[in-house]
Amino acid sequence: MTTTLYISPGACSFASHVVVHELDLPIQVERVGLRTADSPIHQINPLGRVPVLQLDDGRIITENSAILPFLADLKPATTLFAPVGSVERGQIQSWIGYLASEVHVGGFRPLNRPERYSADESAHPGIRAQAVEQLYAAFAHIDRHLQNTPFLVAERYTIADAYLGVFAGWAGRVGGRLDELQALAKFREAFKERAAVKQALVAEGF
Amino acid sequence: MTTTLYISPGACSFASHVVVHELDLPIQVERVGLRTADSPIHQINPLGRVPVLQLDDGRIITENSAILPFLADLKPATTLFAPVGSVERGQIQSWIGYLASEVHVGGFRPLNRPERYSADESAHPGIRAQAVEQLYAAFAHIDRHLQNTPFLVAERYTIADAYLGVFAGWAGRVGGRLDELQALAKFREAFKERAAVKQALVAEGF
Ligand SMILES: N[C@@H](CCC(=O)N[C@@H](CS)C(=O)NCC(=O)O)C(=O)O
Ligand SMILES: N[C@@H](CCC(=O)N[C@@H](CS)C(=O)NCC(=O)O)C(=O)O
Repeated sequence: MTTTLYISPGACSFASHVVVHELDLPIQVERVGLRTADSPIHQINPLGRVPVLQLDDGRIITENSAILPFLADLKPATTLFAPVGSVERGQIQSWIGYLASEVHVGGFRPLNRPERYSADESAHPGIRAQAVEQLYAAFAHIDRHLQNTPFLVAERYTIADAYLGVFAGWAGRVGGRLDELQALAKFREAFKERAAVKQALVAEGF
Repeated sequence: MTTTLYISPGACSFASHVVVHELDLPIQVERVGLRTADSPIHQINPLGRVPVLQLDDGRIITENSAILPFLADLKPATTLFAPVGSVERGQIQSWIGYLASEVHVGGFRPLNRPERYSADESAHPGIRAQAVEQLYAAFAHIDRHLQNTPFLVAERYTIADAYLGVFAGWAGRVGGRLDELQALAKFREAFKERAAVKQALVAEGF
């Protein structure tokens, strides 16, 4: 069994997928559908979600916040992460945590899945409107940080930036107030130009 | 300047605080208030949140999902984490990511802060009711896992369990459907008996 990364086109698994290309890792990338009962993802991850990294012994690792550091640690000398015990490593993991919690679940989830926040459909427009405010606040914090540096940590591209690239892309499609965030827009454009990002987009069928 | 962990009594910073005691780390623990304009936390973390780990050079690390592994890596031989590159390490970080995103922000936030999900107050009871459903689903996944093992990973207590301990405690106070989750309840009782947990509770003024 080859080590396999399960992804779905356009999903948050894109971050882990990009890092496979950035590091040129010998990992098979397998596309699956989501939110259908017959998707093979249910046999691999009981939560039915991507990304999932399945090791050659069959064990799995879920969550971008765990897969990203695991992939980077396969190449200990990579500049995409930082040495164990360094403050930089802590800060990279911190931004990853912020993106997973504040941005993804705190902002995009109520925007895209208001039914998870109220059974009352008439409440959904209000939930979606407030989600845009939350996203704005969550991204404004990032935007302020990026005004002084092109990357999240240590002036170099890391796995935290690969993860931000996904959400910066999603933010571009939300538009509205989020378009005010100039440093984020600049980050998004630079991200798209990376060779690994282009390769991963092609591999996802875009 | 001594390395300092900023916490607030009863907040999610309890996880990082417990690990300071578990590992007997030479870190000063500083209590701060939250959600008041004059709290010293605003001088340390622009987000005004705990936990924050401030290193002796003044740099900070935020997010439990980054502070917990950083603290554990201060004692490389600890059984609270696992060697770099091991699948166990990935799985510990994965549970931490799941707790931070699905449980904390996905479940407890809409329960405790419905105003962040809709400006329309009449929608808040529906949001809080749905949050209990989300919490139930998020904890049921953990409960199924704990039916076969007392700890989240590798049959031993790790930093992921210290983090789960916080939310298991909060779940006990929500009650209702969450009380059906027997393995979670058993985990909560065992967690309370740990010496480091008792020490951290006393240090937080309980
Ligand atoms: N915190 C998780 C989030 C995973 C997640 O929500 N994945 C989405 C795609 S962006 C998914 O698979 N959704 C399918 C579903 O929830 O049924 C991570 O970072 O890996
Ligand atoms: N994902 C963050 C969450 C931090 C967080 O939400 N902390 C809360 C206490 S549980 C806080 O400081 N709230 C104050 C506020 O939001 O104003 C972490 O794990 O550190």
